[in-house]
Amino acid sequence: MSYILHYAPDNASLIIRMALERLGVDYDTVLVDRSTAAQRSDAYLKINPNGLIPTLETPQGPIFETGAILLWLTDTHGTIGPAPDDPARGAFLKWLFYLSNTVHPALRMTFYPEKYIEGAAGQSALRLGLQRALVAQFQTLNTVADTPHNWLGQDPPGALDYYLGALLRWPALYPNDTDRSWFRLADYPNLNALCARLEQRPEVRILQDTEGLGSQPFTAPRPATPKHGSAL
Amino acid sequence: MSYILHYAPDNASLIIRMALERLGVDYDTVLVDRSTAAQRSDAYLKINPNGLIPTLETPQGPIFETGAILLWLTDTHGTIGPAPDDPARGAFLKWLFYLSNTVHPALRMTFYPEKYIEGAAGQSALRLGLQRALVAQFQTLNTVADTPHNWLGQDPPGALDYYLGALLRWPALYPNDTDRSWFRLADYPNLNALCARLEQRPEVRILQDTEGLGSQPFTAPRPATPKHGSAL
Repeated sequence: MSYILHYAPDNASLIIRMALERLGVDYDTVLVDRSTAAQRSDAYLKINPNGLIPTLETPQGPIFETGAILLWLTDTHGTIGPAPDDPARGAFLKWLFYLSNTVHPALRMTFYPEKYIEGAAGQSALRLGLQRALVAQFQTLNTVADTPHNWLGQDPPGALDYYLGALLRWPALYPNDTDRSWFRLADYPNLNALCARLEQRPEVRILQDTEGLGSQPFTAPRPATPKHGSAL
Repeated sequence: MSYILHYAPDNASLIIRMALERLGVDYDTVLVDRSTAAQRSDAYLKINPNGLIPTLETPQGPIFETGAILLWLTDTHGTIGPAPDDPARGAFLKWLFYLSNTVHPALRMTFYPEKYIEGAAGQSALRLGLQRALVAQFQTLNTVADTPHNWLGQDPPGALDYYLGALLRWPALYPNDTDRSWFRLADYPNLNALCARLEQRPEVRILQDTEGLGSQPFTAPRPATPKHGSAL
């Protein structure tokens, strides 16, 4: 069984790439060229009508939504999260959905406020409001990462850690033309430790080659320098 | 095994109530009194640090996030969604996450824009931008509901339909002091049919008694008139 990951460097596809590498399953990658807005092409919209990256082609057809792909891989291959009958399953699911429906959308809206509100003043105000919300969310997650049996902040890492690692990388880098001082990873010591643990992992080190993310993509992020494609 | 559903009338807890009724499992309800902001009380924050409704107490501890609870109930009791090894699992998961991380947050932000952006002008502009996004999302879902093997718009209904039914009820009613003409269920014939099918179901009719939602809570919503508690 082989998969095809439709990816762009430093996009949410990097979360799925870490999971696939960890699981050791066969997969090919197809670059979605953001410099030509290939994610809005007819061919791509056919596999993901929402025009978002990533999409994973599987024997069940294309799966999109980062959280859905992570969960599907967890249930298909184990290892990166608890099985459906595991006593920790409820805790795992609630934090997976929280990352997917609260933290990820809030971050996305700070990167692309123009998709949600017209006018420069409104876009700045929305960004500020969401940054305030994100600080509270990261504080909550910092506490959760110190709680056993929920698969967040565990060693070795799992699906939640791959997802959260990316969500902690991006606010340090994007958007590159705005003040990003509202976010300091050091303010969240348990999340900092989670990121440091991730950087010891082979499935994370491979991101240096494949996506140009450097040697400390989470604790000391620098802009991606991919050989192929474009992060934005 | 008995559950405790922490609910408020016409809040997202109604989605979980439909699922529990459909599954025929034992559960008790505890009203979260929104008129006294009980969802922000120390006691409630102990079971859900995010202060949102619903929370379901289970033998695995409290589970929150509507999508997480729905999925956990699906995997624990079957019936309302495909099993982890079912060929339709990928499609089910991608649309469950989409409802949870795209449609639900967009709606929520149109109801409570003040949580995300300061100033009346910005709040109006954000509401407008999100309403435009929601129209496109409902159009996408209208197509999906006509596609077999994804558990959305199926007969009998499942977890996705319960979730989407509520997401189609609320924009007809909330916020009650704003123009809601941007949303017309009739514009989405497959979703209209989905809502009509739901209203034939016993697990939906029980919402009349328990939450005061009337006889056509999805195709012809009227404001909730609950015996206990407050929708807002």
